[in-house]
Amino acid sequence: MMLENLRKAVWEANMELPRRHLVTYTWGNVSGIDRASGLVVIKPSGVEYEDLTPDQLVIVDLDNHVVEGKLNPSSDTKTHLELYKAFPALGGIVHTHSPHAVAWAQAGRDIPCFGTTHADYFYGPVPCARSLTAEEVEEDYERNTGKVIIETFNGRGLDPVAVPGVICRNHGPFTWGKDAAQAVYHAVVLEEVAKMAMYTLSIDPAAAPAPQYVQDKHYLRKHGPNAYYGQK
Amino acid sequence: MMLENLRKAVWEANMELPRRHLVTYTWGNVSGIDRASGLVVIKPSGVEYEDLTPDQLVIVDLDNHVVEGKLNPSSDTKTHLELYKAFPALGGIVHTHSPHAVAWAQAGRDIPCFGTTHADYFYGPVPCARSLTAEEVEEDYERNTGKVIIETFNGRGLDPVAVPGVICRNHGPFTWGKDAAQAVYHAVVLEEVAKMAMYTLSIDPAAAPAPQYVQDKHYLRKHGPNAYYGQK
Amino acid sequence: MMLENLRKAVWEANMELPRRHLVTYTWGNVSGIDRASGLVVIKPSGVEYEDLTPDQLVIVDLDNHVVEGKLNPSSDTKTHLELYKAFPALGGIVHTHSPHAVAWAQAGRDIPCFGTTHADYFYGPVPCARSLTAEEVEEDYERNTGKVIIETFNGRGLDPVAVPGVICRNHGPFTWGKDAAQAVYHAVVLEEVAKMAMYTLSIDPAAAPAPQYVQDKHYLRKHGPNAYYGQK
Amino acid sequence: MMLENLRKAVWEANMELPRRHLVTYTWGNVSGIDRASGLVVIKPSGVEYEDLTPDQLVIVDLDNHVVEGKLNPSSDTKTHLELYKAFPALGGIVHTHSPHAVAWAQAGRDIPCFGTTHADYFYGPVPCARSLTAEEVEEDYERNTGKVIIETFNGRGLDPVAVPGVICRNHGPFTWGKDAAQAVYHAVVLEEVAKMAMYTLSIDPAAAPAPQYVQDKHYLRKHGPNAYYGQK
Repeated sequence: MMLENLRKAVWEANMELPRRHLVTYTWGNVSGIDRASGLVVIKPSGVEYEDLTPDQLVIVDLDNHVVEGKLNPSSDTKTHLELYKAFPALGGIVHTHSPHAVAWAQAGRDIPCFGTTHADYFYGPVPCARSLTAEEVEEDYERNTGKVIIETFNGRGLDPVAVPGVICRNHGPFTWGKDAAQAVYHAVVLEEVAKMAMYTLSIDPAAAPAPQYVQDKHYLRKHGPNAYYGQK
Repeated sequence: MMLENLRKAVWEANMELPRRHLVTYTWGNVSGIDRASGLVVIKPSGVEYEDLTPDQLVIVDLDNHVVEGKLNPSSDTKTHLELYKAFPALGGIVHTHSPHAVAWAQAGRDIPCFGTTHADYFYGPVPCARSLTAEEVEEDYERNTGKVIIETFNGRGLDPVAVPGVICRNHGPFTWGKDAAQAVYHAVVLEEVAKMAMYTLSIDPAAAPAPQYVQDKHYLRKHGPNAYYGQK
Repeated sequence: MMLENLRKAVWEANMELPRRHLVTYTWGNVSGIDRASGLVVIKPSGVEYEDLTPDQLVIVDLDNHVVEGKLNPSSDTKTHLELYKAFPALGGIVHTHSPHAVAWAQAGRDIPCFGTTHADYFYGPVPCARSLTAEEVEEDYERNTGKVIIETFNGRGLDPVAVPGVICRNHGPFTWGKDAAQAVYHAVVLEEVAKMAMYTLSIDPAAAPAPQYVQDKHYLRKHGPNAYYGQK
Repeated sequence: MMLENLRKAVWEANMELPRRHLVTYTWGNVSGIDRASGLVVIKPSGVEYEDLTPDQLVIVDLDNHVVEGKLNPSSDTKTHLELYKAFPALGGIVHTHSPHAVAWAQAGRDIPCFGTTHADYFYGPVPCARSLTAEEVEEDYERNTGKVIIETFNGRGLDPVAVPGVICRNHGPFTWGKDAAQAVYHAVVLEEVAKMAMYTLSIDPAAAPAPQYVQDKHYLRKHGPNAYYGQK
């Protein structure tokens, strides 16, 4: 089989989703890309996590042709591919229906950066991408979901490395990272941050975001050349 | 014993309820029907899940006569029977008091289709059936509970296959499916969808449903002749 | 040792509290009474559940004299004793700080009977007993806590068998039953009902109680001479 | 290795955080101080709890010099040190991002003492310390976080023994105690109290604190020369 190490890493990242309580049934998928070959390893569609084995993962190229695998790839594959093509820094992508992130997506609101838990990982609010138009849904739903995410980042001048995730209106979250494991890590963070933000509004519906200089400080404490968090 | 396979399947579906955290104590029941014979296998009334064995399940006919079994059938049996008689596509039915679905029932509101998690399984809002009148309660509470559900579906022109569940005002959810396992699956989905919808209102009390074309797309992506989700 | 069977039953009822997620640390206690001798078995004060053994339980008489046991009885013992003296039907009593019941107590509101989950066990709202006065706190806090509960039931004409619990303002719930196990059962039900009622208000802050005839039906379906729920 | 007993106790207190569901990933840290030598044992920065071993803990002096250990100490070390220097009664300190306490911090509100669960451990509201100014963040973020906590306690005349914790605006909670284990105990209590207070507001947004004499009674029932809770 091709890409053994990537396949194993993407399988392990998929299996982390139920362990972290991010998925019910099959409501999520993880992919990883081998940038040298342009090949993407992704979960097959509709397979239960408890039954998922590494050899069931599907390999597709960036034009969405199956290169290896007997099963259909995730129905969200084209969304993943659009993001890999537009954002060269991405090594892994995750989609889930984790409930608090979904709630913000269903409310159609950016998740404000209310505090340092958020600021440590997402620089500024987590953007809520607009709903697709009827035409976009009709033409190519999954590919256009990716395109609307890209439009959101480009239109707002956002760096996908500094903002490693998005919520899609009336749908749910996508997160990403340098590899599949980090993409899952960001999915966990996003759900936790979405929960805390919802709780914050329930205490004060008019709560304001953290001051910009606090957001700067926390993000730069963990990221960039002057980071000093951890053992780096 | 009669209907060994169905009995085993209905027992397994019952045991899935506590595993999925849908029941406290004995607050739920699952049945399945053998359409050839018109016999229904259902949980006995008031037996704790941890003690439940397959041979304790009760077999009743559609006129509510016990055909096999030493225990009383679920007190909700007549509701199940009404639904089986009115909706020929049903192979299994579940009743629970899962807390978020109950909350919508207690608020007396349909659960709006706020996003794709909902749209993947329920086409349009999950309807809230009206309270019974005092006369209906007095005459035959459980049978009339079924009749009011049927009235809700017929009155609104709903297809029970496209909308595989309902919440009964001041009471709680019933879900169904082609068999007992799928009925439980829909009970899990309904509770998750009810939770996400409650969270959505807590972020934006005026949140609007997803556009109809998004609801159409997601439902038809998983159901009907042009479905392309999963390995079908 | 005295009252071996009761001691064992009360110990088991105490151990059920952490299993049912009703207590954090030592925030709860269960007692049971032997009506023949007028002796009460109760949890010792401040002992962690993971360390609790049956022989550590304390036996007190209804005048609050320790009859057997090396440890101090629960600091809430005098509240239990007042209730046993006023309500002869009680065989077991539970106090917890389960979070949703506490929230209603802190909000100082009766828990409305919004639906059948509630009506199956509590006939009408779960009453919220008033705060003690400064004088009552000063004179004998724990005994007066019991007296205010009794005042609440007598003042409203409530039957403690039909309403097997109360929330004490700014404090938390007490529940009871024919024995210690049933008292814990009612503590679980009360927490679940309190959670569902809180969720209901979050969906509709103006939600109305269930119609009285629905409350009657559900309570009488499980209680009294015409009950038909379960295997009785 | 130095301070073997303290090291072991601080390690055990750190490991209690994930067991009590207070941390996601590495979002928390516990320290303990040896007052005789003025040395502090603290978690290393960014090490996952599942991988943490006692020998990885770092020993620093009160001037923030590493005395023993190969890893970087927690990025929050200077906050801990400020608190140890200002409050001589402190033997252990905990920082977490537990979600309900964070929500109050993000809402920028003191947690009112709504009831006895709170009053048993915190005398009066849990204060919310102000955000740092841009200058304070720039100059020395972590040290000034400690200084603002101290300013809050001194400015309000609070005794850190009677109020064993604080929430820092837009950030999260710090708690403390006579040793690391008690500091964690208070972190668990604070999260539970924050949750109950949030629930209370969701039932009644205008809920009032418990009467002062009830707060006095409960605090003094467990603390000080006339305490009578437990086996003391």
